[in-house]
Amino acid sequence: MQTASASRITERDQLRDAHPREVRGAIREGRWDGPTVGMARGYIQANVAIVPERFAFDFLRFCLRNPKPCPLVEVLEPGDPVPRQSAPSGDLRTDVSRYRVFRDGQLAEEVRDLRTLWRKNHVGFLMGCSVSFDQAMLDGGIDLRHLQSGTGRIAVYESNIACRPAGMFRGNMIVSMRPIPKTLLVRAVEITSQYPIAHGSPVHVGDGAEIGIPDMARIHSGKVNEVGPHEVPVWWGCGVTPQAVAVASGVPEMITHATGHLFATDLRVSAHRTGL
Amino acid sequence: MQTASASRITERDQLRDAHPREVRGAIREGRWDGPTVGMARGYIQANVAIVPERFAFDFLRFCLRNPKPCPLVEVLEPGDPVPRQSAPSGDLRTDVSRYRVFRDGQLAEEVRDLRTLWRKNHVGFLMGCSVSFDQAMLDGGIDLRHLQSGTGRIAVYESNIACRPAGMFRGNMIVSMRPIPKTLLVRAVEITSQYPIAHGSPVHVGDGAEIGIPDMARIHSGKVNEVGPHEVPVWWGCGVTPQAVAVASGVPEMITHATGHLFATDLRVSAHRTGL
Repeated sequence: MQTASASRITERDQLRDAHPREVRGAIREGRWDGPTVGMARGYIQANVAIVPERFAFDFLRFCLRNPKPCPLVEVLEPGDPVPRQSAPSGDLRTDVSRYRVFRDGQLAEEVRDLRTLWRKNHVGFLMGCSVSFDQAMLDGGIDLRHLQSGTGRIAVYESNIACRPAGMFRGNMIVSMRPIPKTLLVRAVEITSQYPIAHGSPVHVGDGAEIGIPDMARIHSGKVNEVGPHEVPVWWGCGVTPQAVAVASGVPEMITHATGHLFATDLRVSAHRTGL
Repeated sequence: MQTASASRITERDQLRDAHPREVRGAIREGRWDGPTVGMARGYIQANVAIVPERFAFDFLRFCLRNPKPCPLVEVLEPGDPVPRQSAPSGDLRTDVSRYRVFRDGQLAEEVRDLRTLWRKNHVGFLMGCSVSFDQAMLDGGIDLRHLQSGTGRIAVYESNIACRPAGMFRGNMIVSMRPIPKTLLVRAVEITSQYPIAHGSPVHVGDGAEIGIPDMARIHSGKVNEVGPHEVPVWWGCGVTPQAVAVASGVPEMITHATGHLFATDLRVSAHRTGL
């Protein structure tokens, strides 16, 4: 007889190389309620934002103007929770294991599904996530501290880089930091620049103080990673940015995924390198 | 004393290597009313579409879902005719030498400026244009028939490739055809795939009948180019597509540039290769 914890480890292992459809199914049926990092490897996992239709055109322009933190994967039809292009068998109301509901610029609640909250005027946005290029960096011979450490959690910071506003939406860019060996810095830029759908190339290299982050211990969320003596801190746009924008702009309503609890699409990462 | 015709040639030659600001100025001040192909070389020229705000979110999703014919350069703020990112000194109402006004799916009129037609609820869209990658192909050693022939006009066809619809917007993709030497086909794909902002890689290679174009003489607009015995017809998404979509969807109002009369942005083509 398995313990609950052993069953959880088995479920996670089974989803590691599963098709994204199975990851979505496991979440929808309540068999998985944890983070999705490391699951359905090779497929694009997406950050989620949902806004009422009257804010959707503004938010879409915001994403287009800020492609590093908010690289668009798909914009859903108003009222339609099904990502017709990137996950035709998916449902944005049920296939994310944890959602955050922001109201008037404040985190109002975290919920396990959106069946009762979803409305006909909701518009869903899927945005690429760094999980995709992390694997490409590993494949390219760049070890990543936050994956070595086992938690899979990365340090996320609020920078002072102002996003380009659109309509009511504004706010500073949230960034993630990866310590990269100095000898592999160029390689890390080369690889990530091939994945604009996964935040693309870095927004900053070197001292965090230059982008408003003087203290590496003061994280927005995630887990601090040490920078070694032969390493340089490298900063990328981060999919937590919409949450910070919901707060800074005070939009009446925005629903996002909870950090790490992503939406698994059917799109292969390898098919979305630049030029393809 | 110059004749009018000689003055026109001088003006065109001067604008050939001019900054886009000067091209826009010449059009705004009435010194140039012709096509802009071959001017401000090295800078992105843009296809233009303007729709009322209530259709703008739908049209924006349409562009995102059809990036080959409609690669977005910038979406302007509602009511603002100034492209703040791509041409801060520009004005969408005056800097295009000829506009087309579509009403209820029909071409209603062609006008020289939009000063009297522009309204506070108009939203401007700028989309990349093949002028940008034509230069890259020339630089890469691929001669292009429509540029050799001196007119600079390319054959444009209506294909049977259905664009992905969004809201009310739908229609077939308009494509342009370039005859490419068979030995340079791979090179042409390689080069154009680096410029998704200029329609990117081809949508079809070979017989036009396979995309609903059995008769190469039946053009939508432009000028027929012969395909030689050692050449293959190669087809790219074309910026005339929004005009066909205005007709097919019957949108109450859409204003576009007239074919060849593009909006010159300040963005350098070379800075918008993939990965940059």
